[in-house]
Amino acid sequence: MERLKVLLHINEASRWPALLTGAANLVNDVGPEKIAIEVVANGEAVTVFANFGQGAAEAVSGAVLRGEMERLAGVGVDFVLCRNALAMYSVPGHCLPSFARVVPAGITEIIRKQLQGYAYVKP
Amino acid sequence: MERLKVLLHINEASRWPALLTGAANLVNDVGPEKIAIEVVANGEAVTVFANFGQGAAEAVSGAVLRGEMERLAGVGVDFVLCRNALAMYSVPGHCLPSFARVVPAGITEIIRKQLQGYAYVKP
Amino acid sequence: MERLKVLLHINEASRWPALLTGAANLVNDVGPEKIAIEVVANGEAVTVFANFGQGAAEAVSGAVLRGEMERLAGVGVDFVLCRNALAMYSVPGHCLPSFARVVPAGITEIIRKQLQGYAYVKP
Repeated sequence: MERLKVLLHINEASRWPALLTGAANLVNDVGPEKIAIEVVANGEAVTVFANFGQGAAEAVSGAVLRGEMERLAGVGVDFVLCRNALAMYSVPGHCLPSFARVVPAGITEIIRKQLQGYAYVKP
Repeated sequence: MERLKVLLHINEASRWPALLTGAANLVNDVGPEKIAIEVVANGEAVTVFANFGQGAAEAVSGAVLRGEMERLAGVGVDFVLCRNALAMYSVPGHCLPSFARVVPAGITEIIRKQLQGYAYVKP
Repeated sequence: MERLKVLLHINEASRWPALLTGAANLVNDVGPEKIAIEVVANGEAVTVFANFGQGAAEAVSGAVLRGEMERLAGVGVDFVLCRNALAMYSVPGHCLPSFARVVPAGITEIIRKQLQGYAYVKP
């Protein structure tokens, strides 16, 4: 049986908990071997990665989010970041987690995945 | 002619008025017999159902929403709730309206409907 | 090669900057001759057009948005407004920019475009 395929789109940092909960629910419900999940983050959502390289109090929630992202990446979830957004919000490259992949424009990636049969969900 | 098919996704309680207005506009514009509308509520959006069983002041707007949901259910709109979200937000089962249906994971339902040709709209 | 086709949906006025940035990034990334972008505005998002006919301080950001919309319309982006929303928010007809097109129900337009192969993105 072919995997279910879904593109999860996020462009506001406040939606990361909802997105990660949705991805975890999906993996639990369907099984990791039967689902292909790609997360595309653009706009203000990428600012959460700026905290990953810092030690400030604000970085606490960032660390929790990163931990859950790493866990999900470990079961096959693909994290894709928009280069335009990283530049617009001045997120330094050394802050990006190794499990994430950068594309020139997140919005183009979202469209191309839908052409490849991915459902679109915005948590 | 085949019906238009649409999945309306809601995950924030504050969006219920916009979602119900959109569903009503769609029924008026296309005609109830030419449209199949499924509403999938997950995340914080399901908290609106907790008010349905209460008598508090906060329940007033809940009652207005419920009335409009009932009217739309009566013209064929399908209301689907996410069990994960109901558990996460502790919405008691006796609060759920009889016209609503519960699925194990709302996000899986959203993907499967798109595979069945439903358009995705997030009001 | 066929153009990429995308429907950008907006229903909150605060999302116009994100939407216009996304559209501009897409045109830059893919090239204007290889992309078909339709923007559908419904709900509270149409209130931004009420400012277009006024001279108040609030209209300043409206003017900036309008300038960017005009630029994008000039490279082929289609702006479509929902008549139901314009009526609900009392946006006068003389405020609407000449590059915009009005449809009876924005939500129906969004569904029909997806049936025609347009990807859906909500910036």
